[in-house]
Amino acid sequence: MREQYNVFHLAIPCKDLDETVEFYVFKLGCKLARRYADRVTIDFFGDQVVCHLNPESIDPSPRLYPRHFGITFRDKIEFDNLLKLIQIREIPVFTPLFTRFTKTAEEHSSIVLIDPANNLLEFKYYIDPRMMY
Amino acid sequence: MREQYNVFHLAIPCKDLDETVEFYVFKLGCKLARRYADRVTIDFFGDQVVCHLNPESIDPSPRLYPRHFGITFRDKIEFDNLLKLIQIREIPVFTPLFTRFTKTAEEHSSIVLIDPANNLLEFKYYIDPRMMY
Amino acid sequence: MREQYNVFHLAIPCKDLDETVEFYVFKLGCKLARRYADRVTIDFFGDQVVCHLNPESIDPSPRLYPRHFGITFRDKIEFDNLLKLIQIREIPVFTPLFTRFTKTAEEHSSIVLIDPANNLLEFKYYIDPRMMY
Amino acid sequence: MREQYNVFHLAIPCKDLDETVEFYVFKLGCKLARRYADRVTIDFFGDQVVCHLNPESIDPSPRLYPRHFGITFRDKIEFDNLLKLIQIREIPVFTPLFTRFTKTAEEHSSIVLIDPANNLLEFKYYIDPRMMY
Amino acid sequence: MREQYNVFHLAIPCKDLDETVEFYVFKLGCKLARRYADRVTIDFFGDQVVCHLNPESIDPSPRLYPRHFGITFRDKIEFDNLLKLIQIREIPVFTPLFTRFTKTAEEHSSIVLIDPANNLLEFKYYIDPRMMY
Amino acid sequence: MREQYNVFHLAIPCKDLDETVEFYVFKLGCKLARRYADRVTIDFFGDQVVCHLNPESIDPSPRLYPRHFGITFRDKIEFDNLLKLIQIREIPVFTPLFTRFTKTAEEHSSIVLIDPANNLLEFKYYIDPRMMY
Amino acid sequence: MREQYNVFHLAIPCKDLDETVEFYVFKLGCKLARRYADRVTIDFFGDQVVCHLNPESIDPSPRLYPRHFGITFRDKIEFDNLLKLIQIREIPVFTPLFTRFTKTAEEHSSIVLIDPANNLLEFKYYIDPRMMY
Amino acid sequence: MREQYNVFHLAIPCKDLDETVEFYVFKLGCKLARRYADRVTIDFFGDQVVCHLNPESIDPSPRLYPRHFGITFRDKIEFDNLLKLIQIREIPVFTPLFTRFTKTAEEHSSIVLIDPANNLLEFKYYIDPRMMY
Repeated sequence: MREQYNVFHLAIPCKDLDETVEFYVFKLGCKLARRYADRVTIDFFGDQVVCHLNPESIDPSPRLYPRHFGITFRDKIEFDNLLKLIQIREIPVFTPLFTRFTKTAEEHSSIVLIDPANNLLEFKYYIDPRMMY
Repeated sequence: MREQYNVFHLAIPCKDLDETVEFYVFKLGCKLARRYADRVTIDFFGDQVVCHLNPESIDPSPRLYPRHFGITFRDKIEFDNLLKLIQIREIPVFTPLFTRFTKTAEEHSSIVLIDPANNLLEFKYYIDPRMMY
Repeated sequence: MREQYNVFHLAIPCKDLDETVEFYVFKLGCKLARRYADRVTIDFFGDQVVCHLNPESIDPSPRLYPRHFGITFRDKIEFDNLLKLIQIREIPVFTPLFTRFTKTAEEHSSIVLIDPANNLLEFKYYIDPRMMY
Repeated sequence: MREQYNVFHLAIPCKDLDETVEFYVFKLGCKLARRYADRVTIDFFGDQVVCHLNPESIDPSPRLYPRHFGITFRDKIEFDNLLKLIQIREIPVFTPLFTRFTKTAEEHSSIVLIDPANNLLEFKYYIDPRMMY
Repeated sequence: MREQYNVFHLAIPCKDLDETVEFYVFKLGCKLARRYADRVTIDFFGDQVVCHLNPESIDPSPRLYPRHFGITFRDKIEFDNLLKLIQIREIPVFTPLFTRFTKTAEEHSSIVLIDPANNLLEFKYYIDPRMMY
Repeated sequence: MREQYNVFHLAIPCKDLDETVEFYVFKLGCKLARRYADRVTIDFFGDQVVCHLNPESIDPSPRLYPRHFGITFRDKIEFDNLLKLIQIREIPVFTPLFTRFTKTAEEHSSIVLIDPANNLLEFKYYIDPRMMY
Repeated sequence: MREQYNVFHLAIPCKDLDETVEFYVFKLGCKLARRYADRVTIDFFGDQVVCHLNPESIDPSPRLYPRHFGITFRDKIEFDNLLKLIQIREIPVFTPLFTRFTKTAEEHSSIVLIDPANNLLEFKYYIDPRMMY
Repeated sequence: MREQYNVFHLAIPCKDLDETVEFYVFKLGCKLARRYADRVTIDFFGDQVVCHLNPESIDPSPRLYPRHFGITFRDKIEFDNLLKLIQIREIPVFTPLFTRFTKTAEEHSSIVLIDPANNLLEFKYYIDPRMMY
């Protein structure tokens, strides 16, 4: 279990600040914490994602491995709420909902989104929360 | 404030599983959660970092922007303990301790580490915790 | 003590959405949760303030009583951090830092800010937290 | 998520202290924290509402926008308990239970009460708690 | 909501230390914290009850009002578990399970036990936890 | 450690409801939860004290043993704040601040108050919080 | 209720470090915290188990009494998840799932595992969590 | 960080129930949870230690490795309070206070007690709490 008052932060590239805010804040429902000329910082499910304006670092052909990020939810209802949000707001999906590691202890549901700068976001829900790590 | 029972997860490339475990577990003091033939998963300060064996994705000339990750600590003592650990265990430093945004509300201390696969880890401490995002 | 997962919400008028975001997000360090054509919603120190575009409801000559709102902090450091922020970012002050009810059990420090729509924000710190109500 | 030990405070006008106590304490089930000659302070669902005796500031024709306040509950049971309380104790309703933003992610249930000084209180419950802000 | 780390303490008379331990520890499932020649202290559902050897203070004809004490449970399952315990261990009941204030907001279930020194213990469960006070 | 959401409740006699509210709410800074013709219920430091109008049950010559009640504070600052409150508001003291069990592990500070119905309230602070029970 | 930030630690013998890691980390899903030449330390469900290389201390004919250790879960789902894990990963069982103290307040489910060094691990779930001690 | 509502349990041998209660409850300040003819169960700093009457399993010449147990405290004050308790109540010490792993990240203070059945109890305090595992 992590410390509630600390924050994980992740810096990633983006190619346009407005479309970044549109995706993370107005689509995904995160909060905008700060905005500078060269970056926006997002309160991403309680952690921090900083999107740096850096169009040349965009991956033109993104694959899930080895780079992606996201949240693993403890309660299924949070995962389901996110699935509904994705549908209602038509958030771009990279890999639709699927189950990984079926019939093992690590079995979990997953969906992968893609942001406007081709960063991949994976959200997961494990049947057994001890396997979240 | 983030939800204590959820987990942020980040997938990054590595080039050798043993040296990855050496760096994250035996140097940085994180816990090893799982190990497969192609990856190790780390309990990274309560969140999850998955290191995928993917030597071809290693960045040969890493820069801090736009990609890095880490923890922003709420309590200064946690940050100071990490600084001591870095010194005692001679963990590779990419950018030594410095202060960013001096004399602004966003003022914070930062140190950047580099893992064996050239991933950059930034740890931070803000004087005003409201600025952590 | 309040319930951490509930949210207090307050709706107030504003006269321009951009200046509202400027004041609450970029000055006061709150987070922008949502923005519509007629309102913005702010994550105000963990509670919700909704600023409705309603220029005709602006009070031209605001007084502290009977309408204002704000946060009473439990830890003095949070109050002090806010005072520093006000100074560094030159946030408009309506009533400078003062002490109210000196030598009574209800003694507390207070500062009153004014937002671009003449709404008054009072932030307080009580020596005895039992008196916060 | 807000800080459990801090308190949101809101100052509003009232026109009679006894009827204010009757409404907030004996009807709505809040707790009376303090009473002075010119005001009462209420522990309003864990936050603080201060009702200042100020009959001349009463809004004779209250509308929901742009000024109202209330609590957004995380658990539906808390919202339902309040609905039952309103019925049992016949608390004055300004707008009966309705659903706002149907079929969007922001969908929520709402009921609006009116206190003896024409202040409007809105209580809400969101299907997706991430949309509470 | 009360502070988890503080303790409510209540001192009551008892007429025999062994029978007191038998009732509170071995019947009611509380924990024995300390025992002196003239008293035992009990960890009573997380609070402290001190039973002082004082046979002359025993009330020969106990009534529920005005003196009794007990716990109001937030979760019904805790109340139900206690009811089962009372049945299984045949703990002396003063007033069997009943409902008080039916059809009001304050409606709650209650059971009253009697300890070997005629102290009365009331355990309650409210449908609406806001009415617990 | 006790469960934060449960409530300890204690019923005691009083001889006048107004003076009871005066003592518990306006002197001691507790909150008034409910008031009926025959009783008032107090949010007493997060627990519940119910004062039943029952003048004939008043103890004319109160002694500390075997009946009294109160709070044992975990943090010294809470105890000190209460001592200040007692002084500022001139709350009736039955036994001034003293130290009990000096030079033992159970050493603690204590002060005993007396309410208008001769109920005795003891507030304590232990150097070693493990001894609070 | 125990203190979340403290750790119970238990030192036990093992006869091979690799098989110890295999059992505790890769079978039982615990995390590896540290590994030295003569011991491994395990984050065992949030507490610490240190396995010291000490083959001569292995009990050749282990019995459940008087030495064993384990976790008593508060939520049944955690216990059930562990039962599933044991089945999926074919973790060695010493005593299959059984019920102890049927029809008493102390009734609980239990399963006993055996590690490669013949240490016995008991996991339990009580119907009434007050009986967990 | 461990789950507050779960309990670590440890079963150990003892040779006399009364002396076991004397040591754990009246010396060490733990709470007695249950007592049967063949065992006592102790609330040991929030976890559970069960002492089974099993004189033949007593280790006549106890050594610290490989079997011992105890608590690692997060806050130094808790460790210091225990040291004071040991002194005041003259609790039998097996190894006086010492420092282990000096000048490494794992540096910690430790004291080892011995119970009447020769079980060894180690209490520790780490400068860097991340090293507690």
